[in-house]
Order: sequence, then structure tokens, then C-alpha cells
Amino acid sequence: MCELLAMSANVPTDIVFSFSGLIERGGKTGPHKDGWGITFYEGKGCRTFRDPLPSATSRVARLVKEYPIKSEAVICHIRQANVGKVSLENTHPFVRQLWGRNITFAHNGQLKDYQDALETSWHEAVGESDSEQIFCFILEQLMNKFGREKPQTEELFKTLTALCQTINQYGVFNTILSDGEFVFCYCDTKLHWITRRAPFGPAKLIDTEMLVDFKEETTPNDVVTIIATQPLTDDESWQKMAKGEAILFKLGEVIEQHTNN
Amino acid sequence: MCELLAMSANVPTDIVFSFSGLIERGGKTGPHKDGWGITFYEGKGCRTFRDPLPSATSRVARLVKEYPIKSEAVICHIRQANVGKVSLENTHPFVRQLWGRNITFAHNGQLKDYQDALETSWHEAVGESDSEQIFCFILEQLMNKFGREKPQTEELFKTLTALCQTINQYGVFNTILSDGEFVFCYCDTKLHWITRRAPFGPAKLIDTEMLVDFKEETTPNDVVTIIATQPLTDDESWQKMAKGEAILFKLGEVIEQHTNN
Repeated sequence: MCELLAMSANVPTDIVFSFSGLIERGGKTGPHKDGWGITFYEGKGCRTFRDPLPSATSRVARLVKEYPIKSEAVICHIRQANVGKVSLENTHPFVRQLWGRNITFAHNGQLKDYQDALETSWHEAVGESDSEQIFCFILEQLMNKFGREKPQTEELFKTLTALCQTINQYGVFNTILSDGEFVFCYCDTKLHWITRRAPFGPAKLIDTEMLVDFKEETTPNDVVTIIATQPLTDDESWQKMAKGEAILFKLGEVIEQHTNN
Repeated sequence: MCELLAMSANVPTDIVFSFSGLIERGGKTGPHKDGWGITFYEGKGCRTFRDPLPSATSRVARLVKEYPIKSEAVICHIRQANVGKVSLENTHPFVRQLWGRNITFAHNGQLKDYQDALETSWHEAVGESDSEQIFCFILEQLMNKFGREKPQTEELFKTLTALCQTINQYGVFNTILSDGEFVFCYCDTKLHWITRRAPFGPAKLIDTEMLVDFKEETTPNDVVTIIATQPLTDDESWQKMAKGEAILFKLGEVIEQHTNN
């Protein structure tokens, strides 16, 4: 399996603290050593750092840890390979374009026997991972349904949630998808989130000795949401998402939410 | 304007030497300080390092210079902005997918009044640069003509050359495009290349104090071609491409070539 990490914030914020915790799980405190990647949005533009090497010891991961890139939306993934060999083309997150936006996708889980049902006509995966093929399916469905125009947020949320429910029938499917403006999350088995806002306090990472006092790093209006497979700190209250729950975050806030109940 | 750099090699080779020369032109020995980017292919997978900051002083460029990534195909670009602000979404190279491959594109030049003639129905640019719009046009034309199947090399080369000739009518258009297997170059005003093979010798960069003895870095069977806007070394013979000339390199060798004469 893999681990996911994402951020949605109302001001450009760096993710160094959370990233420092997560990458330890890629070969040190966790078994997710088959590559890692992180996409930072800066406006509509984005850049992805990606490495098929273990994040805990990767040179590129060290740069990302030491060089704070400020962003309003981030998606990160550390991989423990199941479908598809350890290689750059199978390393998440995947980035493709739709509606004049960069769309970023990362997945935790494993799918089976989905190929015939979730076929695509135009979008074709580069690697062999189930995740990239599913991303192609999602993009194609969005393109078929909405054409060249990005729909209103509510409609987009409903469609993404329905697509995730369909895909979820074929196996474990925890996922995060972003266009830089929104961060969409769908939980099958495991996904947690926390929103930090004033009054800010200190927090301590679980995976490595690192403590931060967010009061010193923020201004009173900052709203920063972190989404992760497992909580990254042990002195804060993370919200556990329910099975089948979907949330769309924008500028750090919950904008749309769906639960099965 | 901008500067282009690319590599095609028959063994995974690092581009540290050429990159070290080029990035000096991004703010130090040249005026191309409005961002830079480099795409490394490793098999079908690729990764792009991209920065809207001047390459000569960029932290990310320093990593790329110090951390040799071995690749059979590389495309690099340093930017001096004309169309489109200095931002991540306008920073080359651009990477999109076609035929289950990552296609990478970089452009030097400036185009005018092309919008109506070179329209696209599906591919939409994220940023405002003429270059990204032209890349969308090329991909759409390839998709329309060949559908889901990548054509034979000769046919692909002819089509790419014809597309470049069409685009060239709208302004200055030097370009490099790759799918990781081939590296295609089209010269309008300025493009040079050199193939290094046994017996290898020393070479000295123009833009910074750096000397390399390729004999020590290579094996006798290595074939490495470097393509650049301007020669990067002053003690080797670079070939100048003619106006309207197109070449397709594969594993360091010239596979297809077209000249106007």
C-alpha cells in the first residue's frame, strides 16, 4: 500500500513540517520505500518532484525538505509497490491537463478486474499501475460529461464522488485529486485531516524528532488543512474520514462534503 | 528569447556538464533569467525540474547540477519571457501525454497572429505562452491524424516537420520535442548539435570554468548527442542546423533528416 499527504491553504504555505514526517515512512519508520512524489501548485502552474528511490534517503526529498516552497495546494505520495514495477512512470502523483488546468492525482489501495468496466478511449496510461489507469478513466469521464468547460464546484464534487464510488467497487480506493484550486479527497479505508487556524499552537511529529510552533509560522487569518493517510502528529486531534466519505477543500476550508449516512 | 538544450544517448548518461554551462546564461553570462526547466526520461517515465527563478542562482538548478541523473533523453530550456508572465505555468519544458508516452516540448522564438489558424478543440493551454498553445496544437494534430497509435518513425518525422513548417509561418520557431525514445529538432534561426563518440577527448565550457575529459566518463560504445541553441564548448566542432532543417535523433544517432535544399 502507500501513504497520501495533501494540503489546502488560504495563503501560500510550506509543507516542510508534514513532509518531514511523511518521508520517514518511506524506508525508515514505514515500508513505503518504492518511490515518492510531491506536486506543488503555485497559481495554475505546478511542479512535481518525483523519485523512484526511498523518500527517507532520497537526495531530491532532502532538497524539498530544506527548500520551503510555498503553495496553496499540495499533493504528496510515498509508494509501496503492488501493481507495476518500481519506476518513474509508476510513481505518483500523476499530472495531466483538463479544462486548461493541471490535474494531479494520487491513490492508495489496489484495484482488481476493473479494466473492462473502466475502459478509456483517449487517455492512455504511460506505466502499468492501476492508479494511473484509473486517473485516465476519471479524466475521460469528466471530459465526456462536461466537455471543455469546468463545471460548478457542486456538480464537479458530485461527479467525482460518484466516480470514486464506481471505482471503489473494484478494490481499495483512497484518493486525492486537485486542480490547484480545490483538493478533493475520497476515503475508502483510511484518510485523516486536520485544519489549523488561530489560535495556533505547537505540534510534534510522530515519525521524527521535530516540533513546530505554528504561532511563529503563521498570521491570524491563515487556514491550513492537512490530509494524510495516518495522522502525522500525536498532540493534535485529527478527524478520521468515514468509509465512502468525500470532501472538497478550497483555501483550507471544507466546501463540499458527502457521507454515506 | 530563450535557449534550448537537449540530449539523445544510447546509454543512460548525465547532462551535468552541458547543464552547468547553460544555466550560467540564465542571469549570469546570458539574459535568460525568467525561469528554467529540465525533463529527464528514464525509460517511459520522466521527471521535470522547473523553477520560475533564474537558473544561475536557483536552488533547484544547483541540485540538478550536483546530482547526476542518468538519462537517454533530456530536454532543457532557460527562458527570457516575451509572451506570458514569469510564472510556473509558462515555464518550459511542457509535458503532456499521447499514445501512452510522455511528450516533452520546448520552444525558442515568438509567434504572432497564429491563434485562429492553429486552433485546438480538446487540448487547452494552462498558461498564456504562445509556446504551450503551439504544443497543444501539435498534440491535437498528431491525435487527429494518427488516433491512438503512434505511427512509424518516418511518418511521424514527416508529420512533425510539416507541422513545424506551418507554425514557422507565424514567427520565430526553433523547437525540440521528445517522447523519451526520439528527440526531434526543428531549426528556424538557431540550433546546433554535436555527437560525441569514441575516441572521446576533452571539452571546455564557454560559460563557466569547467573542463571534462569524456574519455574518463564513457565507454567506447557510447554515443551521445547534444543539441543547443548556441554551442556550449569552444574546443569542439558543433554542427549548425540550416533554416528549415529538421532532425530526428534516436539513441544519439541521426535517424531522419530533412533540409530545404
